[in-house]
Amino acid sequence: MKLSFNKDNLMNGINIVLKAVSSKTTMPILECILIDATSNEIKLTGNDMELGIETKVEGMILERGKIALDAKLLSDIIRKLSGDESLITIESDEKFNTVITCEKSVFKIQGKDGEEFSYIPHIERDNYICLSQFTLKEVIRQTLFSTSPNDSNKMMTGELIEVNDNILKVVSLDGHRMSIRKVILKDQYHDIKVIVPGKTLGEISKILNGDNESEVLIFFTSNHIMFEFDDTVVVSRLIEGEYFRINQMLSSDYDTKVTVNRREFMDSIERASILIRENDKKPIIINITDEGMELKLNSAFGTMNAEINITKFGKDLMIGFNPKFLVDALRIIDDEEVTLYMMNPKSPCFIKDEEENYIYLILPVNFNAASI
Amino acid sequence: MKLSFNKDNLMNGINIVLKAVSSKTTMPILECILIDATSNEIKLTGNDMELGIETKVEGMILERGKIALDAKLLSDIIRKLSGDESLITIESDEKFNTVITCEKSVFKIQGKDGEEFSYIPHIERDNYICLSQFTLKEVIRQTLFSTSPNDSNKMMTGELIEVNDNILKVVSLDGHRMSIRKVILKDQYHDIKVIVPGKTLGEISKILNGDNESEVLIFFTSNHIMFEFDDTVVVSRLIEGEYFRINQMLSSDYDTKVTVNRREFMDSIERASILIRENDKKPIIINITDEGMELKLNSAFGTMNAEINITKFGKDLMIGFNPKFLVDALRIIDDEEVTLYMMNPKSPCFIKDEEENYIYLILPVNFNAASI
Repeated sequence: MKLSFNKDNLMNGINIVLKAVSSKTTMPILECILIDATSNEIKLTGNDMELGIETKVEGMILERGKIALDAKLLSDIIRKLSGDESLITIESDEKFNTVITCEKSVFKIQGKDGEEFSYIPHIERDNYICLSQFTLKEVIRQTLFSTSPNDSNKMMTGELIEVNDNILKVVSLDGHRMSIRKVILKDQYHDIKVIVPGKTLGEISKILNGDNESEVLIFFTSNHIMFEFDDTVVVSRLIEGEYFRINQMLSSDYDTKVTVNRREFMDSIERASILIRENDKKPIIINITDEGMELKLNSAFGTMNAEINITKFGKDLMIGFNPKFLVDALRIIDDEEVTLYMMNPKSPCFIKDEEENYIYLILPVNFNAASI
Repeated sequence: MKLSFNKDNLMNGINIVLKAVSSKTTMPILECILIDATSNEIKLTGNDMELGIETKVEGMILERGKIALDAKLLSDIIRKLSGDESLITIESDEKFNTVITCEKSVFKIQGKDGEEFSYIPHIERDNYICLSQFTLKEVIRQTLFSTSPNDSNKMMTGELIEVNDNILKVVSLDGHRMSIRKVILKDQYHDIKVIVPGKTLGEISKILNGDNESEVLIFFTSNHIMFEFDDTVVVSRLIEGEYFRINQMLSSDYDTKVTVNRREFMDSIERASILIRENDKKPIIINITDEGMELKLNSAFGTMNAEINITKFGKDLMIGFNPKFLVDALRIIDDEEVTLYMMNPKSPCFIKDEEENYIYLILPVNFNAASI
């Protein structure tokens, strides 16, 4: 095999497929990137068996073939080679000895047989939806934070993706809070309900250019989800099982409704969090009266008090939260003002807009009234 | 005590003295910053007993007094308070309860008695030199990398600062390499020869604004060095003992002299270093002939070869180096071209300019000729 590339093109391709390369594995072939130039185009593939990414790279095929190269080594070498416009040649022989040349620098590394590499699975293209890269990237950003990265409950590590007619609903929850985002699609589709690993969504979101004009096609099978955009295909296994019954957790009743400037509310909570060191579980206590909202936090390091102007409907309320959970939700909302709906100090608080395009549910925490 | 500050001024002052606050100590008072407003000015001090920094901060003294506050907590709180122009009030009572107020946010923290805090030692102002902040910052940058941060040989953790007439010489060495920088001062001074802890120089270099117009006064006593610049005073203990006899290590003889483009030489060595993983001691082998310079590196991951154009005087030579040591020296030289002076594969290589404003000595390493 002998190929030549523009450094910039090759580096972009490597960075994309690198997201699916396993770093902890006992199978060295999974630490490789496959360079496949057996046909008329050059494809790079990374595959850790859960997540597989394939992308096309522009380049010249001087001799057809394929080779698997250690991903970290390949990416380090290409990154360090001269300027972005430099011409890079990759050449390998039948013993998989590989020579990477750029100007007067020559690297010789040992590759592996491309035949040993697992291609990404073939996916039927029957069941799909279409949305913009921008929307997909936003939806992931606005929900991924409330998955639980390493939970014994596998369901909490993923997100529910549900399609009904022209409505896409994305849900994540970790036992303390839940995020729901609703998006209106341009077309009507078949009903879909799958659970996608959070890791897959996180990696995809890093690859998406986030352009409003570029589209993503998402294909669904009973075991896999496939994302197709630009010159890239991402295939991931689904999480098997039944997702939580989220409708039972939702309620539109409230006794206290508060509208507040998002930035000011978030900044105050973040400031109070200075007084909390790791593993210290101090709640932020919110006291809502007709005079406004008072925030209090009490820790071994000191106390913080802040006052914030609000628009209030309904009863007075004193309620405590894990400050991190409030900040996580407030940070990803784009609106200038947010509205909180609460019932009592034991019931969940809902932060949502009027159209319910977003709903963030946060469970309150107990606080010792004497310590206030 | 009651003081008010502009957030920006206070934050700058805290960031300066924070460099001398101990993070690992059994004495909580050493983790504090002293705010002293007993006279007509407000001074902040940090002091870990090796290094002490005092700086003046602009502010209003509403009530005189002093207080020691936990440095991390104070700096976190001030950083998170509203905009740069915000007014911050710090007020403490006779029990050292301290209230920090900014707009509608109020922090209450427990301070400590300022009397328990150790002031920085008084330094005689007899023996001194004067140079620009720019020059001092540059000299530190160009020598500090070849100190040994945690060496059993305390001398290697410091730098020699020597003044003769109008010449300042700064030297550091770690057993594998040595850096010497020579600076012509504007005035003549008494002879000085002290060893300054590398940590002190590193912290000072972070505080210096690096301005060519601003001056630094450096005062010397038998046990201490004091730097005075802007509104800041830094005092550090010296390292006791006799420095290495560096003149014995220097030589102006050579059999091979090579001039090379610094950037190209450095980039090639850095590229080759991709093939080295931590703790892997593979030399870069440099083969100098009339045809040019060839670089080679051989490791378990592969081999790299690069060719570089040079101007050569004297004999052919094949010599090996720790690639990191070459890159460290090449990175901090500003010249476009550098000249290497070598004798044989066992003798030190000197990288220096004609005026010997800088001299970098690097010991070669053995390599197995068979493995090339």
